[in-house]
Amino acid sequence: MIAIFDSGLGGLTAVRELRSLVPGASYIYFGDTGRVPYGTRSRSTIIKYALQDMRFLLAAERDISAVLVACGTVSSTAMDVLRESFRLPIFGVVETAAAAAAAATKNNHVAVIATAATIRSGAYERELKRIKPGIKVTAKACPLFVPLVENGFTGGDPITKMVCERYLSPVRESGADTCILGCTHYPLIRDEIAEALPGVTLIDAGAEAVKAIVPYCQGKDDVSPRYFVSDDPEAFEQFAKRLLGGDWVGRAELVDIEKY
Amino acid sequence: MIAIFDSGLGGLTAVRELRSLVPGASYIYFGDTGRVPYGTRSRSTIIKYALQDMRFLLAAERDISAVLVACGTVSSTAMDVLRESFRLPIFGVVETAAAAAAAATKNNHVAVIATAATIRSGAYERELKRIKPGIKVTAKACPLFVPLVENGFTGGDPITKMVCERYLSPVRESGADTCILGCTHYPLIRDEIAEALPGVTLIDAGAEAVKAIVPYCQGKDDVSPRYFVSDDPEAFEQFAKRLLGGDWVGRAELVDIEKY
Repeated sequence: MIAIFDSGLGGLTAVRELRSLVPGASYIYFGDTGRVPYGTRSRSTIIKYALQDMRFLLAAERDISAVLVACGTVSSTAMDVLRESFRLPIFGVVETAAAAAAAATKNNHVAVIATAATIRSGAYERELKRIKPGIKVTAKACPLFVPLVENGFTGGDPITKMVCERYLSPVRESGADTCILGCTHYPLIRDEIAEALPGVTLIDAGAEAVKAIVPYCQGKDDVSPRYFVSDDPEAFEQFAKRLLGGDWVGRAELVDIEKY
Repeated sequence: MIAIFDSGLGGLTAVRELRSLVPGASYIYFGDTGRVPYGTRSRSTIIKYALQDMRFLLAAERDISAVLVACGTVSSTAMDVLRESFRLPIFGVVETAAAAAAAATKNNHVAVIATAATIRSGAYERELKRIKPGIKVTAKACPLFVPLVENGFTGGDPITKMVCERYLSPVRESGADTCILGCTHYPLIRDEIAEALPGVTLIDAGAEAVKAIVPYCQGKDDVSPRYFVSDDPEAFEQFAKRLLGGDWVGRAELVDIEKY
């Protein structure tokens, strides 16, 4: 059983990848929809929320083989604390995305787009330079992307295209040939991002992390997935059904996350 | 001493009005910046947060004469619960704004723009129809306005203008001659809203509520205001300094709101 959590809906893009790679994978998902977004909050608040999310998942399910932190903000801010606090394999999205980007870039110049907290943390940049010391990194915070996605400005919306142009024109002009989508919400506006970054290879951080967690999925395909949220299960269910399509089987349950 | 609270920064527009009407007013402010926005959350979550906000204010300060709920979402969703739970005068922004709009409209047609939760509550509409039974009301949720303001897309930003056009063209076409800004963030993009609604009288719900609370302010002008937030006091201080100008005197303190 894999445990997956995110600040809200974005982590479902990683669930989609997981279901595509391992169709029978059993997992439990928590989306902190009562406190989304994480990416504009301070480091101490993000750590507090991440610890609560983990405690809830471990209380809800005893048979967890690994945890996927499907939230770029937590992955870049709280992994040390999580790994010190909990003795099981915990995967974030930073290391695998950095490795994929370092392998993909031909001109040794990678861009990272993510929430304000992720960019402020410098986590992607550190990891890229650890793997490839001479690599050039261009980082750009895109704080309006998550609200745009959460409020349905997707599917080629001209407002989202305009925000993409605002945030991404410096990335385009930097000359980076590879760009990490460092937040799991961003694949939901991948086409709009691609339009603003023609010719640039996009690395989906959530999808890369899912590849690393596949070994922990095997042999457990007979349990239905469970979904938990901290607010508005109906809205979450609707979104999940749209994103995951007919594969979606189940209801989202409400959690009082502040108790954990 | 007045207690004022909001989901985040928006309530400071009401503070600005209060300081303009009663320059020496003493007050305590709480902004729930760790859980903003409220307007996309469910009713039960909004009520839980509002109760915690009130409990914190009453614990922080004994000498509170009245409370201003400077949050359109709480004002439209949780006033009954707050008034049942706490025995002191509590003012929301709905009643006074509805009264001002009912007085201002010449064609008996008022529009309300606010967060999704406020519009869903129907509170402004009910109050307008209670005052003026034959009044026509056009309501429009504008869920991206708060993230735009919180992320600095102000000062005539073309993206904000485009979002205004998207949300407000149906309001303009409805023929309403008066529009309530039902969220205290909205005065921060008042010019952009006015441009999309030419000839329409705008009613600032926070400013109208402040007028009602003035009687509770008198004779207490010797205490410095205090500001509390649930995340990132530095960002709050910077914003408050920009908004309140040289009048700003003091620091924002961090609160663990989930304890209340």
